[in-house]
Amino acid sequence: MPKDAEIQTVVLLSGGMDSCVCAAEAARRGGAAFLHVDYGQRTEARERQAFEAMAEHFQAARKMTARLDLLRQIGGSALTDTRLAVPEQGLSEGIPITYVPFRNAHFLAMAVSWAEVLGAERIMIGAVEPDSSGYPDCRPRYYEIFNQLIAAGTREGKIRIETPLIAMTKEEIVRRGLELGAPFHLSWSCYQNSTEACGRCDSCRLRRRAFRQAGATDPIPYAAAAEER
Amino acid sequence: MPKDAEIQTVVLLSGGMDSCVCAAEAARRGGAAFLHVDYGQRTEARERQAFEAMAEHFQAARKMTARLDLLRQIGGSALTDTRLAVPEQGLSEGIPITYVPFRNAHFLAMAVSWAEVLGAERIMIGAVEPDSSGYPDCRPRYYEIFNQLIAAGTREGKIRIETPLIAMTKEEIVRRGLELGAPFHLSWSCYQNSTEACGRCDSCRLRRRAFRQAGATDPIPYAAAAEER
Repeated sequence: MPKDAEIQTVVLLSGGMDSCVCAAEAARRGGAAFLHVDYGQRTEARERQAFEAMAEHFQAARKMTARLDLLRQIGGSALTDTRLAVPEQGLSEGIPITYVPFRNAHFLAMAVSWAEVLGAERIMIGAVEPDSSGYPDCRPRYYEIFNQLIAAGTREGKIRIETPLIAMTKEEIVRRGLELGAPFHLSWSCYQNSTEACGRCDSCRLRRRAFRQAGATDPIPYAAAAEER
Repeated sequence: MPKDAEIQTVVLLSGGMDSCVCAAEAARRGGAAFLHVDYGQRTEARERQAFEAMAEHFQAARKMTARLDLLRQIGGSALTDTRLAVPEQGLSEGIPITYVPFRNAHFLAMAVSWAEVLGAERIMIGAVEPDSSGYPDCRPRYYEIFNQLIAAGTREGKIRIETPLIAMTKEEIVRRGLELGAPFHLSWSCYQNSTEACGRCDSCRLRRRAFRQAGATDPIPYAAAAEER
C-alpha cells in the first residue's frame, strides 16, 4: 500500500453505476482512497460487496467503510425506512420518496474529514444532475457551495470536490465507463433487491435505459419479471 | 411528549457550557428537539451524562444521541486519538491539535437531516468565535455558507441555522446563562477528565476565566491540582 503522502483523492463509492465510472476516473490518476458509507440502506450488504470488489479491482491505495446510523434512526425515506415502499411505477416529477434527507452532506463531510487527515486535496463523487432522480443534493450549485464551506471550515481550506459526471446523461456515463473499462459487472444499482436487480425501481429504470441508449449490454442479472419499458 | 408537528428547533447539545446556554435560549421558545453526537471523544461518557441531565432539565420535546464512528476511525485530533496529548500549557496561536477535522459539518448535517424529517425549520448551535479556541468551523462565515447549502440541498430549502452565541465573549456567555437560569451545574467542558475537571486544558481554561471575569462561581468540581492562571 502506498503511504498516505501519496494519496491525492478520496473517492466516494456507493457501488452503483455512476460511482463505478467515477472510481475509474479517479483510478486513472492514481493515489485514490475509496470511501463507502453504510447508512442502513435496504441493499447495503449488496452495495458493500460491490464496493469491496471495486476497491480490489482498482487496487485502491486505501479503503474505508464508515457507519452512519442516524439516517436510519430518523427514517423519512423509502431507502432507509422499510415501512415506505420503493416506487415501481416509473419516474415522476418532483423529489421522490427515495430522497434521503440531506444525505450527501454526510458523505461529503466524511470525505472531507478523511482527506484532511490523509493530506489529500481532492474529493470525487459521482453525482449526476440531468437524467437523474431529481435529488436536490445532486445539482452543480450544491457542490459549488460545499467547496466554499470547505474553504471556510477546514484547517488549510485547500480540499476541493470534483463531480466529473455531473453534467452527463446516463447514456454518456455508460459510454464513458466503457471507454475507461469501468467494471460495470461489479456494480449494483437496484434500490430493492440484492441477488437479481428488480428492473422496476427508478434506479434500475435509469440504468437499463442508459445501457439501451448506449447500445450496450448491462452485465448484471435482472429478475425474469423485469419488463423493458 | 409533543407531536413532531410542534417541534420547531433542533438544538445541538454537546453538554458543555456554551451548548448549555444555547439550549436555554432554545428552551425559552419551546418545541425543542435535543441532538447529541457521540463521535468517540475522550470524555463522551461524561458529556452524554450532561446531555441527558439537560434534556431532562429542559423537558426536551424529543432527544436523540447519534453515533459517528468515522472521526475516531480517522483520528488526527487529540480529542479522538488517545495517542495525541491534550495540551495543558495554555492557549496558543493557530488552530490547536484539539481541532477535529471538519467536525461541525457532521453535526450540522445530522441536525438538518433530522429537522427535515421532523418538519422543524430552525437549528441552534452554541458555536463561539471570539475568545475561543480558534477552530475554523466556529466562524460566522462558515454558518452563512452552511445556510446556503441547506437552501440548495434540501427538499424545501427552508431550514436555517442560528448561532445565538457566536459573537459573544465567554464572559458574556456566562452572564447570559445566569440571566436565563442555565443549569451550569449539569454541564461538562473538560477535554480530559470525567470526574473532576482538569482545569488545565484549553476548554477548562476558557471556562474558568469566563466565570472569573463574570464574577461568578463555576459550580462544577475541579481537580485539587488545577491552578488558577
